[in-house]
Amino acid sequence: MWDYKTPGIPDEEFERTEKVPITKEEVRTVQISKARLKSGQTVYDIGCGSGSISVEAALQIESSGKIIAIDYDQNAVDLTKKNLEKFELSNVSVILGNAKEKILELEEADAIFVGGTGGDTKEIVELSEKKLKIGGRIVIGIILIETLYSVLQVMDTLQFKDVDITQVTISKSRKTTTGTMMLARNPVTIISATKA
Amino acid sequence: MWDYKTPGIPDEEFERTEKVPITKEEVRTVQISKARLKSGQTVYDIGCGSGSISVEAALQIESSGKIIAIDYDQNAVDLTKKNLEKFELSNVSVILGNAKEKILELEEADAIFVGGTGGDTKEIVELSEKKLKIGGRIVIGIILIETLYSVLQVMDTLQFKDVDITQVTISKSRKTTTGTMMLARNPVTIISATKA
Amino acid sequence: MWDYKTPGIPDEEFERTEKVPITKEEVRTVQISKARLKSGQTVYDIGCGSGSISVEAALQIESSGKIIAIDYDQNAVDLTKKNLEKFELSNVSVILGNAKEKILELEEADAIFVGGTGGDTKEIVELSEKKLKIGGRIVIGIILIETLYSVLQVMDTLQFKDVDITQVTISKSRKTTTGTMMLARNPVTIISATKA
Amino acid sequence: MWDYKTPGIPDEEFERTEKVPITKEEVRTVQISKARLKSGQTVYDIGCGSGSISVEAALQIESSGKIIAIDYDQNAVDLTKKNLEKFELSNVSVILGNAKEKILELEEADAIFVGGTGGDTKEIVELSEKKLKIGGRIVIGIILIETLYSVLQVMDTLQFKDVDITQVTISKSRKTTTGTMMLARNPVTIISATKA
Repeated sequence: MWDYKTPGIPDEEFERTEKVPITKEEVRTVQISKARLKSGQTVYDIGCGSGSISVEAALQIESSGKIIAIDYDQNAVDLTKKNLEKFELSNVSVILGNAKEKILELEEADAIFVGGTGGDTKEIVELSEKKLKIGGRIVIGIILIETLYSVLQVMDTLQFKDVDITQVTISKSRKTTTGTMMLARNPVTIISATKA
Repeated sequence: MWDYKTPGIPDEEFERTEKVPITKEEVRTVQISKARLKSGQTVYDIGCGSGSISVEAALQIESSGKIIAIDYDQNAVDLTKKNLEKFELSNVSVILGNAKEKILELEEADAIFVGGTGGDTKEIVELSEKKLKIGGRIVIGIILIETLYSVLQVMDTLQFKDVDITQVTISKSRKTTTGTMMLARNPVTIISATKA
Repeated sequence: MWDYKTPGIPDEEFERTEKVPITKEEVRTVQISKARLKSGQTVYDIGCGSGSISVEAALQIESSGKIIAIDYDQNAVDLTKKNLEKFELSNVSVILGNAKEKILELEEADAIFVGGTGGDTKEIVELSEKKLKIGGRIVIGIILIETLYSVLQVMDTLQFKDVDITQVTISKSRKTTTGTMMLARNPVTIISATKA
Repeated sequence: MWDYKTPGIPDEEFERTEKVPITKEEVRTVQISKARLKSGQTVYDIGCGSGSISVEAALQIESSGKIIAIDYDQNAVDLTKKNLEKFELSNVSVILGNAKEKILELEEADAIFVGGTGGDTKEIVELSEKKLKIGGRIVIGIILIETLYSVLQVMDTLQFKDVDITQVTISKSRKTTTGTMMLARNPVTIISATKA
């Protein structure tokens, strides 16, 4: 369980498997902050991976809210469920399947997280805009140059305002025998916006 | 007022003056997350500047908690008060003065934020450790190489565990007539730890 | 004059004007290195700006080689000429005009530098590939996300091998009254390749 | 052999072994540029590792110049020799031993490269200053926070002018099945200065 109100659960608190990526704690914290969450909201976590975003969001929206986590990978779905159990969260539904089909059936959302590693991020952003309530927030985490470009292109054509593009580069220290070095992590670009 | 549970209030929501620095929203969000805040806590914000950390922390600890903000600059104290009023927060005391003297008189803290621009950050960290409850959190934001070194040196000699050193580099987009460029902001190093 | 064999002339050695950008010394050094220059080569500098790349390249190819610098901005052409005079270089022709038209008339090149701030970088890369000798090198400096994407797309369709994509982020120190801080400069992405 | 006048030999052109680090090509290029080399110079490469700096410097100073490479690790000395052979360079002496003792016996230098991974970088900088000719250049590559601080402290007390502190962060692309991602390398800080 996580006993604090602030997001940013340390990575090592989550169950991990080698095949499923996790959004690292500092980047995850910034993504959660960009979603501007409240009690009682409905939130999608598309491409939920290890479920770390779902866990953090579920804690913020509290038991009156609802997270819908989707991943096309059975390993990710299993791991997300394991992490939800570990953090004793019951306000999250985990769906195995193609987000492009599943999104259409869902209730409207107050906030949508999109993990940007697939080739269809642009289409998912288009579908997400349709499901967002007016004033709702989209938060897209991107590591590929091609995805960054294609999402940038589509943001302007959709009903979004206050589009924010933030690149986050984190380095973490490692102690060596002769001193402290900084190890760089790969940069992540976070695009966020409000449904107009 | 800020209506959301998540930290990361946009910079432009704060009152600003030219002479007083603000901790930018993404770095501020990571700092807030490293403090691991709860309802009802007592939190110091040393070198409060514009008060943006005090505002975010006050929202997390809610009205049952208490923030004590300190700055030696009258402009910073005035600006912090203005921002507290803007966000309708009454659980923050703002003190004008030298943190090294003022800290000694304060009640014990659950979390302490230290802004690292002054030459006396090392001494403030030493004093802070004395005032932190066991299990309490310290979060130090640093931009100077000399301060980074001197705080690193002192962390090992004090009763801290789980020392984390994270450098955060943020770039923000700017639209030009021919496309989108990324503008780099100066890196900030955040040292955080738990009082052992 | 620059008395050394190594590239990396300090920025302050160049004549500057406010309206014309300069490729900063460390990024310029990496760009020059990616071009793999030799005595006697023919080199284009497309979008020459202040002429700093032309100056550095002219020193490397020596008086038996030839630089052709092009810019559509009269201010850039004037400034480039001023810098060539300052560094006593006579192996550079400076052309005012649209690179897309001018390139076609030029002799074949051993190396081509392309400054990537305009909207037509993709077309210039396509034209450059035609003018490069087999084994010749192209070096493209990019700051816009859209340009990065469009150049990436076109590289695969042209006769290039050993395509290298390197992002360079430079920070420089500034002394303050309390210590040394690092000031970040905006990242530049350098794409280089060999004509196959 | 390397047939070009510009520095920046690709990393894969060098013999490598797992135990001996190499200064990566873009950082190496910037270091070489900061040394401002000429034909006929005498240059030390202290902590030569794989010898990549020695190779690049030897090409710049040509056969009339002289490189003295030192490392306390037999593996590094062997690898440096292998690389000198590969690039057909005969103007480099490679010394096995403690730089702090060996430096004293050497002839005066026009430029000195110092690799900053050891705990005694500060002492080596002090000794190097004594051996540098007036107007000579020192270039120190640093990855540890403690070394950065200790070298910064000592630079002010020695006869150096035009001290430059540059942090270089390089990311390189990797193609994945769905697009191009940027992989971050650890930042290196380069301190360079002129003997006054």
